[in-house]
Amino acid sequence: MLQNIDLSRTIDKASFKAQKTELDLKLGDLQRTAKSLEIPTIILFEGWSASGKGTLINELILPLDPRGFTVYSTRKPTEEESFYPFLWRFWKRTPTSGRIAIFDRSWNRRVIADRIEKALKGQGLRQAFEDIRSFERQLTDEGMAIVKFFLHISKAEQERRFNNLRANSATAWRVTKEDIRQQERYAEYLAATEDLLTETDTDFAAWTVIEAHDRRFATLKIFATVIEALERRIAAGDRKPADRAPASQRGSDFKTTALDRVDLSLSLSPEEYDVRIKRAQTTVRELEHEIYRRRIPVVIVYEGWDAAGKGGNIRRLTKNLDPRGYEVVPIAAPNDAEKAHHYLWRFWAQMPKAGHITIFDRSWYGRVLVERVEGFCTEAQWRRAYREINAMEQHLVHFGTIVLKFWLHIDPDEQLRRFKERQGLAHKQWKITDEDWRNREKMLQYREAVEEMLHRTTTPYAPWTIVESNGKRYARVKVLETVCEAIRTRLAR
Amino acid sequence: MLQNIDLSRTIDKASFKAQKTELDLKLGDLQRTAKSLEIPTIILFEGWSASGKGTLINELILPLDPRGFTVYSTRKPTEEESFYPFLWRFWKRTPTSGRIAIFDRSWNRRVIADRIEKALKGQGLRQAFEDIRSFERQLTDEGMAIVKFFLHISKAEQERRFNNLRANSATAWRVTKEDIRQQERYAEYLAATEDLLTETDTDFAAWTVIEAHDRRFATLKIFATVIEALERRIAAGDRKPADRAPASQRGSDFKTTALDRVDLSLSLSPEEYDVRIKRAQTTVRELEHEIYRRRIPVVIVYEGWDAAGKGGNIRRLTKNLDPRGYEVVPIAAPNDAEKAHHYLWRFWAQMPKAGHITIFDRSWYGRVLVERVEGFCTEAQWRRAYREINAMEQHLVHFGTIVLKFWLHIDPDEQLRRFKERQGLAHKQWKITDEDWRNREKMLQYREAVEEMLHRTTTPYAPWTIVESNGKRYARVKVLETVCEAIRTRLAR
Repeated sequence: MLQNIDLSRTIDKASFKAQKTELDLKLGDLQRTAKSLEIPTIILFEGWSASGKGTLINELILPLDPRGFTVYSTRKPTEEESFYPFLWRFWKRTPTSGRIAIFDRSWNRRVIADRIEKALKGQGLRQAFEDIRSFERQLTDEGMAIVKFFLHISKAEQERRFNNLRANSATAWRVTKEDIRQQERYAEYLAATEDLLTETDTDFAAWTVIEAHDRRFATLKIFATVIEALERRIAAGDRKPADRAPASQRGSDFKTTALDRVDLSLSLSPEEYDVRIKRAQTTVRELEHEIYRRRIPVVIVYEGWDAAGKGGNIRRLTKNLDPRGYEVVPIAAPNDAEKAHHYLWRFWAQMPKAGHITIFDRSWYGRVLVERVEGFCTEAQWRRAYREINAMEQHLVHFGTIVLKFWLHIDPDEQLRRFKERQGLAHKQWKITDEDWRNREKMLQYREAVEEMLHRTTTPYAPWTIVESNGKRYARVKVLETVCEAIRTRLAR
Repeated sequence: MLQNIDLSRTIDKASFKAQKTELDLKLGDLQRTAKSLEIPTIILFEGWSASGKGTLINELILPLDPRGFTVYSTRKPTEEESFYPFLWRFWKRTPTSGRIAIFDRSWNRRVIADRIEKALKGQGLRQAFEDIRSFERQLTDEGMAIVKFFLHISKAEQERRFNNLRANSATAWRVTKEDIRQQERYAEYLAATEDLLTETDTDFAAWTVIEAHDRRFATLKIFATVIEALERRIAAGDRKPADRAPASQRGSDFKTTALDRVDLSLSLSPEEYDVRIKRAQTTVRELEHEIYRRRIPVVIVYEGWDAAGKGGNIRRLTKNLDPRGYEVVPIAAPNDAEKAHHYLWRFWAQMPKAGHITIFDRSWYGRVLVERVEGFCTEAQWRRAYREINAMEQHLVHFGTIVLKFWLHIDPDEQLRRFKERQGLAHKQWKITDEDWRNREKMLQYREAVEEMLHRTTTPYAPWTIVESNGKRYARVKVLETVCEAIRTRLAR
């Protein structure tokens, strides 16, 4: 969930002030309402060292009634605490009805810092994730609201902040040995964090990633998320947590985005294209043979905007492939027989067997795209689908499958240009339908759905690749080379 | 869940016939209703070789409309199937709306036969359990009814059945090599089955254990369970599976019992008692020192009928213990501060630290006993509690804790005798309250709650020990010796 996040987002001072006053009042109101309804709340902050946890927690508590919350700071377990199961000290600190507990780091420490320091892995690690999920489910099942923040900064930004602190003798002491170790082993901590976010992002306790380079942006996003979480929890009354929508990624202006910064001007000259596409097409053919020999199945998913060029891209990918080793499966709306089954059923039936490649032209992601936006399934259904899809892909990867997912991205202008072009060209006219035009109107809703899909289903085992597709040549080469690279990495394992 | 099950239960021919006709009609009706409501159903059978799966499935399908169901037999994966993830072939066979799929063995094969043959363990095994839970949750989330049977027979009974088959040349071929291996490695298969039942007994897809020694008993229990499951699913309409009560262990006369066969006549002479209690008290003191040295925490839970002798039993256990190493925690009804937290909160705060012993005089099991029977919590809450409690105990065991649970069992006559005796003895009079008398009237409801608790929370990592307590001397020695044995086994690891 941390890949492709746009960390450059900022908010200027004036609009910060304008929004902040209103959010303060709202938050104070909600605290009182939650108290009178006896709803307990946990707000937890995880994040990089120097990502500003302390500052942001201080911002958050300012508008709150101090009699109604407690802030807990989670350090390494004390000797006393290490004599107990790791959840013990957190169980003791769960808030009582109507109160808010704010955690500066939390039980998740176990699967980040502790994991790395104590080399927790394999069964012990899986047990820890299971324990965390089960803990959070038990609390929310009894009516608690849980809001989980991860404050994200880049390695370079962290280094810059450490240097600033060290440059001043009054603050130098704040950079600890542990901090320096984290900076040195940023990649390792990043991988552990990705695991954490994937394993514990549930419909009852979802993560919100905070882009924490800009303090003002981070503050407003935290406020908006907490407010929304409390509003939803209050509106839900006694309903089960699974029927309540999770708090993050909704309605606010602070949604995490992977698409804002995508550089759609990327292109390739015809000459460079020729060289690279031929090389990649030859390579992928060799790799196809090798995965057949080694019995490795490969799943390739194509999703993207209408007119983004999926068809042409797929043809370039398969041009040199041995047709006995791959299959292209186009996915349309489900037929009646398929509708009578679980929505994942028809995809399971199409999965490649060991040694084969299946290319899905559209896929199970329809659930969280078209079905979400067009209302073909309920909100509870598409919200649940993120975890269901992750579970299915995890199952494939457990079996040894390589799972690759491509989002073919174009901007609205380019899309319009292509639509018009299609209308103009007789032999392409069949390709543009009324639906295409209507979808364009719904673009904003689709955009929100796409962003959330990219965010919640980018997992360490099955990441999305965003393919800049305004330039078709660039897009085709990028997909082919990404496929080659993924297979090569896997074969080298 | 297989420990302490009474396999000796039978039903005579006359009452079988009387009940069966009615159940047949009911089942046919329900199949039609489920069809019209488009509810898909899975009924799966796991169980020992020669436990009668084939026969019992034939019984089940007789009253069904053959156009509405399919029976799938799950063998070892074919070569073709082994080229796919293990859930693949089952996804393809999930029933369409309104149909019933009956599985003779199922995806659970992966964690029993496959596990043993292929030595699946550690991470791979945990992944398989997770995949199974996630699969079943996805199906039930979309409205499917899932009924899971495990047909249980003892090792001796299985051997007897194999011998009968082999004695006749017409049936000898039916005993396969795989069957013989299962007989030889019965204990290993039993352990794998216990794991399966514990790991995949969920509120959305609960297991029902069938005592399969007597065909008539097994048939009626299967019918009653399927009927109840369908009735509940139909009554639930569109509600979430978590809000629907699971099917098994309800209202019927076929509930699994651990208490029916308990031999309450067990007793010890005063002389033997003296020798054994002193020996055990000395031993447990030495072991207390040893677990302190090795930093192993121990949790001992006492539950039992009123007047079963918990107090006296605990005094004998702790007589020689070093008081710095143990604590006895009496559990009463929660106070207001405790009620404002999750019900498990107050127990977490009392858990022993490494090297210490905590003895709970009553415990978190109040949730599924008194709170269930007296209506202090909702049905959804106590149904969920089995898994919550198992998860908490699992977390303790992950940490290295020894968890021992004793159910002190006396019969109603003995209880009445003790009540009267207490009333008669002035210095004991305070011990009998109105509530004691009232509870006695609710004995049947309590009995049902106790049976279900013993069944659903007997796990490989934290089993219940039923202590026959009509004879107090016997009960005291049994607890002490069980504690010593458990600690010794752990130290030897």
